[in-house]
Amino acid sequence: MAADLPQNPPRTHKPGVVWFTGLSGSGKSTIAEDVVQACAAQGIAVEYLDGDRVRAMFPATGFTRVERDEHIRRIGFVAHLLEKHGVLVVCSFVSPYREARDAVRAMCSRFIEVYVATPLEECARRDVKGLYARARRGEIQNFTGISDPYEPPAQPELTLDTTKLTVAAAVAKVLQRIAAPGNAVFRAAGGIHAAGGTSQPAPSSPIG
Amino acid sequence: MAADLPQNPPRTHKPGVVWFTGLSGSGKSTIAEDVVQACAAQGIAVEYLDGDRVRAMFPATGFTRVERDEHIRRIGFVAHLLEKHGVLVVCSFVSPYREARDAVRAMCSRFIEVYVATPLEECARRDVKGLYARARRGEIQNFTGISDPYEPPAQPELTLDTTKLTVAAAVAKVLQRIAAPGNAVFRAAGGIHAAGGTSQPAPSSPIG
Repeated sequence: MAADLPQNPPRTHKPGVVWFTGLSGSGKSTIAEDVVQACAAQGIAVEYLDGDRVRAMFPATGFTRVERDEHIRRIGFVAHLLEKHGVLVVCSFVSPYREARDAVRAMCSRFIEVYVATPLEECARRDVKGLYARARRGEIQNFTGISDPYEPPAQPELTLDTTKLTVAAAVAKVLQRIAAPGNAVFRAAGGIHAAGGTSQPAPSSPIG
Repeated sequence: MAADLPQNPPRTHKPGVVWFTGLSGSGKSTIAEDVVQACAAQGIAVEYLDGDRVRAMFPATGFTRVERDEHIRRIGFVAHLLEKHGVLVVCSFVSPYREARDAVRAMCSRFIEVYVATPLEECARRDVKGLYARARRGEIQNFTGISDPYEPPAQPELTLDTTKLTVAAAVAKVLQRIAAPGNAVFRAAGGIHAAGGTSQPAPSSPIG
């Protein structure tokens, strides 16, 4: 860990938080990882946060709704700290609850929610980690899509269905969205505020 | 929160983690806050993490040794993420256990441990928040210095005794240490490695 400090890391001109949400096995981490690589190759200061990496630092975090929500808010806090200092932060979390995702949106200055909308049947068919089979046998509690709900985003910045897109095509769509002007949309209690090139102040609604 | 994104924040050429440790009431936050302000005024990309701010995001964190150690490691993880992207991260935590501080040191690329060595009697005399009186009445458990130990750093980069220094003088010493060459000292299991201007790789010993 100690040797990885770039003394003069490149600076992105597009800081922000790109938030991938979707079921386990939807393909979100596969797409997110390729997005991170593509951004790094362009010299963008980019950081990747995903469930496995962050849960290793937060080992006591469970999977009940309360624990998941706390966990997602902590990630949001960290993501915003990085974004504030010019980093493009790519996050990949099942993050099944709309309220927690919207709390992170409210924390962040530029939030791009990417809904990886692969249908449950397809995720369960792939079952790369064998988790769906175990959840169906009752061996895993609080498993999103089986014993716990997944609340799809109401107005994501981008929706991807991996049954209709190759990984490369999905990655290209995300990169396009990151680079697009006017993609900083802040959602507050009162509605949607486009904050692209305007001087309109972003709402500072309380979290939650 | 959503309006505070600098699109082109200034970049420090001295990223790193400045870690203030010391008893409650030692004056570490007072000094740390002035250091942050001075750095920001110089155009350095700086972030401040302290107990109150971070515990607000991690409300379930308790004060037993295990909980404190987990908490400090999480802070270290966040601090290193920021440092990696060019930020000078100023942290102010009682952080009473040497092992946890050394774990953070091992995570970070440039770690400056500032021991605010104000004696216990003086901290208890000041008792700004009334915590020592409550701890002595047994109303607060696990209170560092009263019912829990404080392990002073064995080899801090800087030691400050606020009974002998004004705040301004203490701040000046920290700023000097931040700016000094050759202050990136990595401590690994095998000993001390100076990593100042050399090409010697920093040790990547496992945390803890």
